[in-house]
Formats: sequence, structure tokens, C-alpha cells
Amino acid sequence: MPQTIISLPTRGAGLYEFTDEAQAFVRRAGVEEGLLTVFVRHTSCSLLIQENADPDVRRDLDQFFKRLVPPSSDPSMGWVIHAAEGPDDMPAHIKAALTQVSIGIPVGERRLLLGTWQGLYLFEHRDRPHRREVVLHLGG
Amino acid sequence: MPQTIISLPTRGAGLYEFTDEAQAFVRRAGVEEGLLTVFVRHTSCSLLIQENADPDVRRDLDQFFKRLVPPSSDPSMGWVIHAAEGPDDMPAHIKAALTQVSIGIPVGERRLLLGTWQGLYLFEHRDRPHRREVVLHLGG
Amino acid sequence: MPQTIISLPTRGAGLYEFTDEAQAFVRRAGVEEGLLTVFVRHTSCSLLIQENADPDVRRDLDQFFKRLVPPSSDPSMGWVIHAAEGPDDMPAHIKAALTQVSIGIPVGERRLLLGTWQGLYLFEHRDRPHRREVVLHLGG
Repeated sequence: MPQTIISLPTRGAGLYEFTDEAQAFVRRAGVEEGLLTVFVRHTSCSLLIQENADPDVRRDLDQFFKRLVPPSSDPSMGWVIHAAEGPDDMPAHIKAALTQVSIGIPVGERRLLLGTWQGLYLFEHRDRPHRREVVLHLGG
Repeated sequence: MPQTIISLPTRGAGLYEFTDEAQAFVRRAGVEEGLLTVFVRHTSCSLLIQENADPDVRRDLDQFFKRLVPPSSDPSMGWVIHAAEGPDDMPAHIKAALTQVSIGIPVGERRLLLGTWQGLYLFEHRDRPHRREVVLHLGG
Repeated sequence: MPQTIISLPTRGAGLYEFTDEAQAFVRRAGVEEGLLTVFVRHTSCSLLIQENADPDVRRDLDQFFKRLVPPSSDPSMGWVIHAAEGPDDMPAHIKAALTQVSIGIPVGERRLLLGTWQGLYLFEHRDRPHRREVVLHLGG
């Protein structure tokens, strides 16, 4: 059962694609069929499978989540208590709760069985640069 | 490791149950214990496990998501850029991001270990009819 | 493939940690590497991996979901039809749809590969006490 932890650098909030890294891991493993589990080891970023064609989709997704969960400095968020690390702290946890920390992707013919328009993204919710650890686990 | 891709027809936005198709796949595989991964190969529909008893639950779920993410022709959605395929295009991506593309369901005694009131649904977010590909992967 | 169903008591809406129960199950199984799937057999509670350090994070998360999806007795929720079991009934289904019923966590060196600040929680959305069944399945 191949397993690895990769480290993805982020430069502020937004979507960072790593479909190629995941495909390369599956190809190297040489497994014909199986299940790739992608797991992020943080609570202020998350995972998303989304359209890889028009970049406006990522821009609009990011906008939606920013409008649904504004910074805790926004008057509408006056009820937030946890702001130890700044106004992007608690909204990051909420956005992570609304998306995924773990995604299972079936593998067939040594490839991720993603649809034509599906890309795999790390969704960073913090404003400052981070290094994010993602576990790739290829099982049966 | 049995694996298949099924095609589900949809007739506009809403929830389409396919618990029986998934159970039948598991039964045919003859696997005593394992994990069924259900994966949808699209970015404008998604998966949901929800109550299978009162149809009003599905109606209300659909309503909630339509109110949280109205068509991009709605004045409150004026910030949306990606509307190439119509006012239901970007909201579909957002609703997919808020729900799941992949769900793992444990199998025991050759059956999905769903609770009594749990049904497995394809959640269509587009207005027009579509055919949706769903991967069923039964692993260890 | 070790598999078990545990029963978690809840005392009203909120987050209930059970990381230790899941870790203990993995340790007893004696499996070096694998994938733990956690699956909740209900449609009015859900699962969440979130920060285990500051309890204010859980309090704020709970607040966010209560504000996004108020009880159906709230004027803003007048469109809700399904209220058979009270004003916390339909909101519970919606909050479950917005979070997860199933989470896959990779296992390495006989331990869940959670990040330092990640805890595993049952997210109860109903007001009254319940017993909640959670399947733990450890596969390859």
C-alpha cells in the first residue's frame, strides 16, 4: 500500500491545483485498480475537486466563500470569539468545515478516474503563505 | 476489486436516489466486508446521503441550496463572472463544492451499512437533463 | 479487515470528540498502514475534523451553522415544509448535508495520520439527547 506525504506551498487564500502530483504518485505505484485517498492535515485549508477549464470558476468559488464567511473584522461577524491569529482565522475553520479534508478517488488502468473537467485542488483559506501537508494513500 | 461506471439520467435540478443500484453492485460482487466508494465524475452535480422517508426533506434541501446560491441572474449574484452556460452554471459548481463528489460507505454481511433512514442520492444542480457518470469501487 | 460499530451518546447540538476511540480501534487492529473510514448512520448529525486546541473554535463553528440555518420556527425559514419532529428537524438535515457523513483517514505506523491540531468530532444537530451509531472500518 503506497503512501506518502507531500508538502504544498500556498501564497494566500485561493485554489491550488495538484492533480499532476496525485496522478504521478498513482502512476509510479504501478497499481492497476484501487482507491487514492487524499487527506489534508490542517483545519484552516481544505480539498476540492472542481472545474479545471475556466479559471473564472475558481475565482467565483473563492468569492462565494468570502461572501458567505467574511473576515471576523466584518460587522456581520461580530459574534466570532476565536480571532487569536487574526480576522482570517475563524473564517478559515468554517470554510474548511463547509468543504472537505478527505477525498477518495477511484483508480482504474493506473489512472485517477477523474472526469474530463475535474481538477484536484488545495483550497487555502489563510491570507499568509503556508506549507500544507497532504497525505496520499493508495489502497485496494 | 470490483469497479464499474454507471450512468444516471437526470431531468433537471433535484435529488435522484440510486441506493438500489449501489446495493445490487455490492451484492453481485459477493464481498462479505469492504468499502464502497461512490465517486461522481462531474463538477456541476454531487452526491448526498439523506433521509429516504419523507420526500419533503429532499424538497426542503433543494430549496435551501437554491436560496443560499440563487441563479447568477439574481441581483444578489451580480459578482459572478462565469456564466457561459447560463444562470444555473456557476451556482451548480458552488452547490457541488458545498456537498460531496465522493462518499465511502462501509460494507458488512454483503450489504451497505447504511442507517435505516439513509438513502444515496445524486444531487443534480443543472436545469437541463443530463447523463451523469458515477464510479462504484468496492475495495477492502 | 477490522470493522466495528460504536455508539456515541449526545446531549444536544454541538461537537463531540471521539478521536481517542478511533485511535484505540486502529491500535488494537495492529495494522501498520491502511485507511480508516468513519461513517455515521444518521441524517441529522454528521462528522467533522476540526481544531482540537481552542474550544472557542467549536463554539464558533456551532454558531455559524446555527446562523446559516436557523430553527424552522424562525421567520426567515418560513419556506420549510418538513417540521414533523420540531423546529430543529429540517435544519439538522441541512447541516448534515453541508458537512460529512463519511471521512477517510489514512493510517501509518499504526496511528491515524491526523495533523497536530486535528480532532475527530461527531457533530450533533438535534436538540434532544441521542445515541448515534458510527461505523469504523479499517481497510487497505
